[in-house]
Amino acid sequence: MADNNLEVKENEKVISPVVIKRLPRYYRYLGDLLKNGVVRISSKELSQKMSVTASQIRQDLNNFGGFGQQGYGYNVEYLYNEIGKILGLDHTNNIIIMGAGNLGQALANNQDFDSNGFKIIGLFDVNPRLIGITVRGVEVYDIDMLEDFLKNHEVMIAALTLPGTKATKVAKDLVDMGIKAFWNFAPVDLNLPEDITVENVHLAESIMTLSYRIHTKK
Amino acid sequence: MADNNLEVKENEKVISPVVIKRLPRYYRYLGDLLKNGVVRISSKELSQKMSVTASQIRQDLNNFGGFGQQGYGYNVEYLYNEIGKILGLDHTNNIIIMGAGNLGQALANNQDFDSNGFKIIGLFDVNPRLIGITVRGVEVYDIDMLEDFLKNHEVMIAALTLPGTKATKVAKDLVDMGIKAFWNFAPVDLNLPEDITVENVHLAESIMTLSYRIHTKK
Repeated sequence: MADNNLEVKENEKVISPVVIKRLPRYYRYLGDLLKNGVVRISSKELSQKMSVTASQIRQDLNNFGGFGQQGYGYNVEYLYNEIGKILGLDHTNNIIIMGAGNLGQALANNQDFDSNGFKIIGLFDVNPRLIGITVRGVEVYDIDMLEDFLKNHEVMIAALTLPGTKATKVAKDLVDMGIKAFWNFAPVDLNLPEDITVENVHLAESIMTLSYRIHTKK
Repeated sequence: MADNNLEVKENEKVISPVVIKRLPRYYRYLGDLLKNGVVRISSKELSQKMSVTASQIRQDLNNFGGFGQQGYGYNVEYLYNEIGKILGLDHTNNIIIMGAGNLGQALANNQDFDSNGFKIIGLFDVNPRLIGITVRGVEVYDIDMLEDFLKNHEVMIAALTLPGTKATKVAKDLVDMGIKAFWNFAPVDLNLPEDITVENVHLAESIMTLSYRIHTKK
């Protein structure tokens, strides 16, 4: 996927895209520290936990202002919230899931998303056996209800957990209905207009990469 | 994940890791062409399908010998098979899935893997309601059966579709039992010995990346 937003300005600073890519991992570690009641942490301690150099951590996190004071370290909660803001997690991001099979249900059941500002508000399917059931309190709707649903709900992201043969058509319909962002699990490239954001999770390509690494290691 | 295998020798040629990363996508497109009965394709046609430049395709695929002849194009089946070999897909890669919840079942149900040399031969769980059921003909076993199972089956990859709190312990046990490669869906870094290969699919980090891109586009 081409990402046309190569930099973000935060307090007049430009944060490099390489740093941005590392942010979700920092966010995860800081979130775990916060859950464990850790108030502050030095770059050295954080670097040991994360298996990266303390110098990289200092350089990366210096982008977020002067929170890493010598002899004090980082304020965990502050840094966690600042990174959350950069990642857009201070908004509620409503998600719909197209396809209520195992993978769609697995996403709906994943509690990691709620706590990070993501909220799954509906699943859609064509299978009469699935329509009407709820997954962690979220209803599976008939796909015919989609247009009405989108009129009444602000949806930020559509996750596609459909077969590849159906995903392209459904994505194009969703674009026509105003959806601007896709989390695509179908094994196809969607080829949508430039202004649409697509994040692909291509599982078959992921396991091929693993296979490559196994067989070259031998 | 650090990948220590930065290059692979194939017929005395060194293929760059950047090219290697693009191989699964070529493999997918060539596989689709093959299914549709296409015997040969020019770099120009392939580049249009894949939305990359013809020049990049020629450079990438030149690594695989002289199959792209001027005026002929690429032999689809030959190229597909050659790329498959590089990716280790000419072996059968037996997989077990640790965790038979929605995500584990979604992987077991995914037909994309079979056709690419991957074979899921067992799921393991602790939940008595899941033990004994089959998913596309593959049984869910009690996790207590794991050690015996591994004595009787050659397993190449363990997929971890467990909660983060359990994944680290299960992965360490599997390493003790001889497993060398993990496809990790749990939201943790496994921190396993150097000789173990880990491919992470961190879904929460994937959707945070999407969120970042949405909110910076605005």
